[in-house]
Amino acid sequence: MLKLYGYWRSSAAYRVRIALNLKGLAYQQVPVHLVKDGGQQHGADYRALNPQQLLPLLVDEENGGVRVAQSLAIIEYLEEIFPVPALLPADPAERAQVRALALHIACDVHPLNNLRVLQYLSSELGVADEAKNAWYRHWVALGLAAVEEGLAAFDGRLSLGERPGYLEACLIPQLYNARRFNCDLAAYPRIVAMAARCEPLEAFQLAAPEAQADAQ
Amino acid sequence: MLKLYGYWRSSAAYRVRIALNLKGLAYQQVPVHLVKDGGQQHGADYRALNPQQLLPLLVDEENGGVRVAQSLAIIEYLEEIFPVPALLPADPAERAQVRALALHIACDVHPLNNLRVLQYLSSELGVADEAKNAWYRHWVALGLAAVEEGLAAFDGRLSLGERPGYLEACLIPQLYNARRFNCDLAAYPRIVAMAARCEPLEAFQLAAPEAQADAQ
Repeated sequence: MLKLYGYWRSSAAYRVRIALNLKGLAYQQVPVHLVKDGGQQHGADYRALNPQQLLPLLVDEENGGVRVAQSLAIIEYLEEIFPVPALLPADPAERAQVRALALHIACDVHPLNNLRVLQYLSSELGVADEAKNAWYRHWVALGLAAVEEGLAAFDGRLSLGERPGYLEACLIPQLYNARRFNCDLAAYPRIVAMAARCEPLEAFQLAAPEAQADAQ
Repeated sequence: MLKLYGYWRSSAAYRVRIALNLKGLAYQQVPVHLVKDGGQQHGADYRALNPQQLLPLLVDEENGGVRVAQSLAIIEYLEEIFPVPALLPADPAERAQVRALALHIACDVHPLNNLRVLQYLSSELGVADEAKNAWYRHWVALGLAAVEEGLAAFDGRLSLGERPGYLEACLIPQLYNARRFNCDLAAYPRIVAMAARCEPLEAFQLAAPEAQADAQ
């Protein structure tokens, strides 16, 4: 059995839920509340499993109980262990384009707007809500603009032609966050069109934050 | 020919230089100055190559001029195109451990302390230098503590046993940054020991910021 430690609104956990669903893999979810108890990811139980104290974490009980942290490491692991259906294209140059866009979201957009960072801005640096929201939208706008340009190469197709994969598993959660913080999306028609093709699919519907058992 | 657009002090470019050297690949470097001209990465010439406007960028002229952004996407690409010597272990569970630690550095430490973020803290949020340095050290301390725990599994070995690879290519540049900002490293003996084994190696020496032609 695959066990996924996550949180309904964690963007990184949302990526992995999409990837698991796209591969048609069954998994058990274990909710870890990011706010309750001062953040359950810092509690001794979870910390013993994942010293990074971040979500998500995958535990593969069939494979000696291997524990994998970091959403993109988990997706790469799933791709290696369960290669069909693939989430990455076969050609190395195309794989690199997908990874470069996914990593742009995972490294240069999302971590800057993660809950712990927003908390630090407020509590340690005394940043007011308005300036914090401007920070949020600034990094989203820069990031989505770059992804929008990168999507030109896909010419209206999904990253696997007619199928979504690794790229869409990263993009749709980022777009969910952008909408949640009322970012203006008018400048990103390719992203919005790609999301419109993915969001009705069952793999994405079942992975959506509001569809999770721990959603509030 | 492989062409690497970078900057001597860019931590992400430093990772790729190490990876290229570990694989024994010849490459031509093209310096892009992150401060001069308002940041040459934002100039029209570089932006046309990489809409992400970040470093590094690899151009593989032998392979149709494919352009790959994002240091980890570049390293994965190199691993696929030039598999020997490998920078990742062969076993999927071990690969996942390496990627999870590398991604922790690349997603959850480095982007928070990137030049553009420090500039935003100063110029947009009016954060004073002292608080900015505390911010820097805060994310480094959290990140290195997690990596230190993760290294326990390696039991004093390098990530490929006697050889460094993907993990060390990410860790040593992060340690370089930590030293540059006077972060206290006493709590990370495994990291320091791993670095002490890597830093004398030619692949790391030749990749060091101060060894680059554009170093100032």
